[in-house]
Amino acid sequence: MSAAHSLNIVPFVSVENMMDLVLSVGIEKFLIELSAYVEEDFIRWVDFDKTPRVASHSNDGVIELMPTSDGKLYSFKYVNGHPKNTKSGRQTVTAFGVLAEVDSGYPVLLTEMTILTALRTAATSAVAAKHLAPTGAKTMAIIGNGAQSEFQAIAFKALLGIDHLRLYDIDPGATQRCKKNLESFGFKIDACRSAEDAVEGAQIVTTVTADKKNSTILTDNMVGPGVHINAVGGDCPGKTELHRDILLRSDIFVEFPPQTRIEGEIQQLAQDHPVHELWKVIAGAEPGRVAEKQMTLFDSVGFATEDFSALRYVRDKLSTNSGFQNLDLLADPDEPRDLFGMLMRHATSTRVTSA
Amino acid sequence: MSAAHSLNIVPFVSVENMMDLVLSVGIEKFLIELSAYVEEDFIRWVDFDKTPRVASHSNDGVIELMPTSDGKLYSFKYVNGHPKNTKSGRQTVTAFGVLAEVDSGYPVLLTEMTILTALRTAATSAVAAKHLAPTGAKTMAIIGNGAQSEFQAIAFKALLGIDHLRLYDIDPGATQRCKKNLESFGFKIDACRSAEDAVEGAQIVTTVTADKKNSTILTDNMVGPGVHINAVGGDCPGKTELHRDILLRSDIFVEFPPQTRIEGEIQQLAQDHPVHELWKVIAGAEPGRVAEKQMTLFDSVGFATEDFSALRYVRDKLSTNSGFQNLDLLADPDEPRDLFGMLMRHATSTRVTSA
Repeated sequence: MSAAHSLNIVPFVSVENMMDLVLSVGIEKFLIELSAYVEEDFIRWVDFDKTPRVASHSNDGVIELMPTSDGKLYSFKYVNGHPKNTKSGRQTVTAFGVLAEVDSGYPVLLTEMTILTALRTAATSAVAAKHLAPTGAKTMAIIGNGAQSEFQAIAFKALLGIDHLRLYDIDPGATQRCKKNLESFGFKIDACRSAEDAVEGAQIVTTVTADKKNSTILTDNMVGPGVHINAVGGDCPGKTELHRDILLRSDIFVEFPPQTRIEGEIQQLAQDHPVHELWKVIAGAEPGRVAEKQMTLFDSVGFATEDFSALRYVRDKLSTNSGFQNLDLLADPDEPRDLFGMLMRHATSTRVTSA
Repeated sequence: MSAAHSLNIVPFVSVENMMDLVLSVGIEKFLIELSAYVEEDFIRWVDFDKTPRVASHSNDGVIELMPTSDGKLYSFKYVNGHPKNTKSGRQTVTAFGVLAEVDSGYPVLLTEMTILTALRTAATSAVAAKHLAPTGAKTMAIIGNGAQSEFQAIAFKALLGIDHLRLYDIDPGATQRCKKNLESFGFKIDACRSAEDAVEGAQIVTTVTADKKNSTILTDNMVGPGVHINAVGGDCPGKTELHRDILLRSDIFVEFPPQTRIEGEIQQLAQDHPVHELWKVIAGAEPGRVAEKQMTLFDSVGFATEDFSALRYVRDKLSTNSGFQNLDLLADPDEPRDLFGMLMRHATSTRVTSA
């Protein structure tokens, strides 16, 4: 950890602090550095305690807890998904997370993760694409131009050199905003009139729509051989984006199979449909793309180890960036077993002060 | 919620704020009011999403997440248990928790829960004892005089009228400290030389030791007929306090059977050993104590609904108590889908400011 601190204090990175951090590092550099942490943790995949996220579903959305541990550090993320939230001026997805020491169980970092999740999701997609996209890919279609779209674009630029974007959203305003947000980043950007139009000439197709239902953003005839599909939006039961036939034609790469079979595009397939584990590709134990005409699919749902990597990265950044608050989160009695005495002495000190 | 607030802000109750709240309400009144919330939620037990806690075990301890929801509100608690922590001046148990709206997935409260957990554990024990302890009980033995002991004593005084305590701890210093902490609360207090000595004449026996192992704090011959045992310390796999023979003689009451069978004293018994569900007793669907000579046992492990009740109580208290901070926890872009734009506009505003 950065500064020495009392046992009661947990560093807290607010939304403001996170924006300062991302901007002071630079968003492209942030994504490159974060990707290195994500890769590092995928390579040592076997070290992690892995469990599907703990989800609480309601009619309007879901609240999830995503814990993991490598035996030294423990992390969890709280994240919601409520598509209707945008109608009341709220985010579809918000998140915060905690990193803790396994040895003591004490948290060492609490941080906003709405922005950080957008960054780690994009970083993970780009890491996967490094191994799966066709060599020399320059053009990416992005279908769904909401909150995650620009982060995907910049991560693919920073890690793969994508410099041509073909954007489509059912809301043309979203496409215009995405285009405007990205205009200073050096892309050639086409605003397209349909998903069919957008995928034209793209070597990579990113789907990142938000509706909580089974949609068909891509049908089989829309995707040619050799394309890499980065399917980000289908990430909970009953929420998919791709026609089943696309899945049957693709080599499918996933994060944690027990979770992806519940939440990913492959919920449309038999439970024993063969899939590849992304970590094995990143660790070099299995090949990624093996043929020019191969259709590859990263069925991204987001996994707890990626949040772990992001939390670890932010914690390491705090040593050189002072943007955090000290939160009085943990009771720290002068005598460890004397919680009650601490409370009573607080009464005395308060009484003395106000006398 | 208390004050109107921006969408990015979550009220945070620090350790200091919590101590102020408990002391301003008064600890006995706090425990009485909190018990009413705990009872209310036990009565509507069927409304809750219930799942055993999600535990991450290591050699030295455990980190747990305890989520639940009644369909309107969602809560979770982060809690660790590391007995060795006291050696480095840390608490064995620390905790914090979050209350959120199911409708939007947005958190509405973040609070310390080290102190609050001690209070809700004591409140729950007292609620159980109201239904299970012998009528007119005045004397309670407390075996294990650590951080939870005084809270138990005061809850039993406030809710049952216990006015005589018989204390024992393997560390006589712990007993002396507990006695001193409680001296202004109007108890008659005996410091005892052994567990056998402590249970002498007690109608209620509370066991609340902290070692993470299977111990035998009480053997069968030590406990006479008619006694109520409030077993608080045995609360994770491999950590029990009572001899198996005591369990076989008792009517056993538990919170959530699937969790207690893993974590409670009854981990020593067959998986189908009959137990009573506490909520049914509190709701009046089943009797509590039915005979003078009956030996009753509350096999307490702590359940997520009790934290839910405690969080709900604290949130309601915030409307009349101003002791909290506003935490910038949630990204709140002016345009909901424009997270990236918010980040970029922050760059502009920062640049202008520092120019």
